[in-house]
Amino acid sequence: MKIIIIGGVAGGATAATRLRRLNEKAEIIILERGGFVSFANCGLPYYIGGTITEKEKLTVETPKGFRDKFNIDVRVENEVISIDPERKILKVNELATGREYEESYDELLLSPGAEPVRPPLEGIDRENVFTLRNIPDTMRMDTFIKMNNPATAVVVGGGNIGVEMAENLTEKGIKVTIVEMADHLIAPLDPDMASDVHNYIRAKGIRLYLGSGVTAIGEGKVLTDKEEIPADMVLMSVGTKPETALAQSCGVEVNAKGSIIVDERMHTSVPHIYAVGDAVEVEHFVTEEPTSIQLAGPANKQGRIAADNIAGYDSIYTGSQGSAILKVFDMTVASTGLSEKQAKSAGIDYDKVYTFLAPHASYYPGGTNMSMKVIWDKKTEKIIGAQIVGYEGVDKRMDVLATAMRFGGKVTDLTKLELCYAPPFGSAKDPVNIVGYAAENIISGKVKQYFWDDVADLPRDGSVSLIDIRTPEETAGGMIDGYVNIPWVEIRKRLDEIPKDKPVYLSCTSGLKSYNVSRILTGLGYDCYNLAGGYRLYSSIMKDK
Amino acid sequence: MKIIIIGGVAGGATAATRLRRLNEKAEIIILERGGFVSFANCGLPYYIGGTITEKEKLTVETPKGFRDKFNIDVRVENEVISIDPERKILKVNELATGREYEESYDELLLSPGAEPVRPPLEGIDRENVFTLRNIPDTMRMDTFIKMNNPATAVVVGGGNIGVEMAENLTEKGIKVTIVEMADHLIAPLDPDMASDVHNYIRAKGIRLYLGSGVTAIGEGKVLTDKEEIPADMVLMSVGTKPETALAQSCGVEVNAKGSIIVDERMHTSVPHIYAVGDAVEVEHFVTEEPTSIQLAGPANKQGRIAADNIAGYDSIYTGSQGSAILKVFDMTVASTGLSEKQAKSAGIDYDKVYTFLAPHASYYPGGTNMSMKVIWDKKTEKIIGAQIVGYEGVDKRMDVLATAMRFGGKVTDLTKLELCYAPPFGSAKDPVNIVGYAAENIISGKVKQYFWDDVADLPRDGSVSLIDIRTPEETAGGMIDGYVNIPWVEIRKRLDEIPKDKPVYLSCTSGLKSYNVSRILTGLGYDCYNLAGGYRLYSSIMKDK
Repeated sequence: MKIIIIGGVAGGATAATRLRRLNEKAEIIILERGGFVSFANCGLPYYIGGTITEKEKLTVETPKGFRDKFNIDVRVENEVISIDPERKILKVNELATGREYEESYDELLLSPGAEPVRPPLEGIDRENVFTLRNIPDTMRMDTFIKMNNPATAVVVGGGNIGVEMAENLTEKGIKVTIVEMADHLIAPLDPDMASDVHNYIRAKGIRLYLGSGVTAIGEGKVLTDKEEIPADMVLMSVGTKPETALAQSCGVEVNAKGSIIVDERMHTSVPHIYAVGDAVEVEHFVTEEPTSIQLAGPANKQGRIAADNIAGYDSIYTGSQGSAILKVFDMTVASTGLSEKQAKSAGIDYDKVYTFLAPHASYYPGGTNMSMKVIWDKKTEKIIGAQIVGYEGVDKRMDVLATAMRFGGKVTDLTKLELCYAPPFGSAKDPVNIVGYAAENIISGKVKQYFWDDVADLPRDGSVSLIDIRTPEETAGGMIDGYVNIPWVEIRKRLDEIPKDKPVYLSCTSGLKSYNVSRILTGLGYDCYNLAGGYRLYSSIMKDK
Repeated sequence: MKIIIIGGVAGGATAATRLRRLNEKAEIIILERGGFVSFANCGLPYYIGGTITEKEKLTVETPKGFRDKFNIDVRVENEVISIDPERKILKVNELATGREYEESYDELLLSPGAEPVRPPLEGIDRENVFTLRNIPDTMRMDTFIKMNNPATAVVVGGGNIGVEMAENLTEKGIKVTIVEMADHLIAPLDPDMASDVHNYIRAKGIRLYLGSGVTAIGEGKVLTDKEEIPADMVLMSVGTKPETALAQSCGVEVNAKGSIIVDERMHTSVPHIYAVGDAVEVEHFVTEEPTSIQLAGPANKQGRIAADNIAGYDSIYTGSQGSAILKVFDMTVASTGLSEKQAKSAGIDYDKVYTFLAPHASYYPGGTNMSMKVIWDKKTEKIIGAQIVGYEGVDKRMDVLATAMRFGGKVTDLTKLELCYAPPFGSAKDPVNIVGYAAENIISGKVKQYFWDDVADLPRDGSVSLIDIRTPEETAGGMIDGYVNIPWVEIRKRLDEIPKDKPVYLSCTSGLKSYNVSRILTGLGYDCYNLAGGYRLYSSIMKDK
């Protein structure tokens, strides 16, 4: 059996070594247009920033390693120019010499990835305009920075790569501005959860222009529809498009966006041709609808599954849920599944909970509260998405939630999880358990919520009671307009100040203490509503506006 | 409704506040024999060690807080001396005055906990012999250390509290010896996984006497069956016994070990009496057999469930799986479910996998490999237990495994988990995914394993091939007796050195590279076996012996 893999990063590299392990006798060739295979694409920003200092570290496995360990023939700088699926023959251009040759295959795997979009802007071809996909991109940018000592940079596009690069350029002493077309950074977050990120990034000295489109790149500047931003260098990170021209040219079916359509065994519409990674359309684990999720984890899984099937073992891919995480300075931002926005557009009747809890026992030193949002399908009670913004311990809670989701867990199942507790690591009631408890209280009707975006619309005419139950020390830092302060510990004594026939809207720091008060008042016959996320979330959003 | 809770820590405190939230009008009284409620029992070692510096931090909620926020009547230093379940009346002794009084109840919750065992040893009552259960214990020990500046300490019993205290006493500059009756520390670990812990703890200057029983405590020393150990102070942490004399005296059914028998709603054998926490027998989540698991997480969950049922809501406890974690200096030790030893004694036909992987992308700085062992039921393929010893990222992987277990996950389901990946946090193939892959290879017969304790028995007479496939640089540090070195990259060229008709036993650092070689040789028709955990685990165990 002779297997050719086009593209030697992530999914392609994984498939190659798995294939070797499954079949010692097969001939396996990787054809890679670029100069490197199996490189650390997710590590590239950290080379620019100086966290990774050795260029060699960026390569996980060399062509020599593939040869010596796996008996795999890796041909870098060999570009496939055409595929003849009838004859099962490729035409290849050896870039260094220009020589063209043919190579036959029994099974073909496409792992072409996706390339950064370079919008046709005036100035896009200036030498100080970069994209970041591979090692040559990285070296070009690194050399530029070393030679030119840029004082300012504009990052166009505030997705994960954009934000990671903004951090790493800032670490180099460069004054960075992010220009993002949407109203918030990091698309998988909802805007309410993004506010903490915006406020934090601004405090780190990065300027944000949100809802702002670049119109041109000039000499030492970027022009948007509103302003002119100094820019000694520009990083374009506005998204990617699947590199599927070659696949399409041989009749492989793609969707409207150009992503390759595969079945659950990663087989394309053309016999003996498989495809994996950023270039393929996958089924969304939650919606079961086709989508594009470009992440290294899914690409690696798909590579292994394609290899299994090519080698004659049955193996299926069960969809992507989009678990993603981002470090930005000391902050961690993580998400999985659907955002509220996505749930809405998928037509799912959902509910949601917000918490703000410490990553470990409050009496143990260190640990900053994390802001969590978990969304579930009201019909099935299944968790359909989660977002966490915080510091220490965010990655752990998101992985637990992603795991619960993968098993089809209900949000109330989170109450049953027995997670590891010792003071340095968690709490006897872990933040994940508390999300379950809070959701259970909502589902069983023990608490009714209102949200930050309901606050402005609440009448200030006395027809409802607006009560902030924090301590006077806490409210000294600010209170929502129109609210009166009745501290929790005084509430039972001051019931005469709260008309029993009017709805009561409560607020506290995070929604946890006011939930307690909501239970007091509900138990006494009041109609009570609790501000989800509390004043903390509300004020973070207001500060961001 | 009038509810009395006996015991105001963990389960009792949780039940009290939950009850208030469910019923604003009930009368709720906590009777606590000691001077404190709702204190941080898991934090006590860190007060001794100086990580927690303020005594106030050890109290999560004060009696005044219970009164003001929850309208709960907390009576500390009030000991219940008898229960009359017919009349539903308690007799209480107010310890400060000696006054006895009666208190009626509609529903009673017992949360008495478990007390440290003090074996009847000669010298056990010396003033330098301590146990650690509560705040007075802590203050007594803290005062002793400040007044006497002990140079040496013996910790008797190497469970979690013993090891945490050994760390914290070492941090105070005290030379610590742990004496443990079993052959290894931390009972939920198997001996093979405990070796790394032993080696690490010894390197921190703590002496270990394993398989060693204390026979007497003398002046400035502890005597064991073998030696005399200097001891200016002694901590007894040899286990606990449930404090159920009061419960038993009123007819509540207990098991042979004195643990209170409850149903899944935490109801005891006596009407209107519930019980939670360390004093109750629970169902083991894996074996479904009754057991005793004394942990804060389960106690808190049970408290909430008891409260729900007392307040008229249906809520059931679904068993404990024993998820536990321990920090010892910079090391993290975590476990969930059954150890191999427990699986064996439960009569389960199990298999197991060992891995040794980095907590995040290898090219990103920092991160020390963690040693993982995962055990599954061969019949159902369900995960039944896991153990991890390492540093950064151990807690996350154990919580993911504990979550997968809770959902009844198969070990092969771990391949499907889509965990969050970015270089600072993980790898595109997370260590948990790799456990799944490795198990899948074992289950499908792609690799056959042998174990560290098989090594000594392998014939050295040429009837089998023993091959270490590491690089010469790696084997320079030591090789298993009788093995020959054929590096992975040379294996295909040196096949003539490996007789095809004899079984091949491979070894590498962790078992990962030799798995690749095992696939090469298996593909060529050899009968191959792979050393699980590799030379690293083997040599750690040998070093420990």
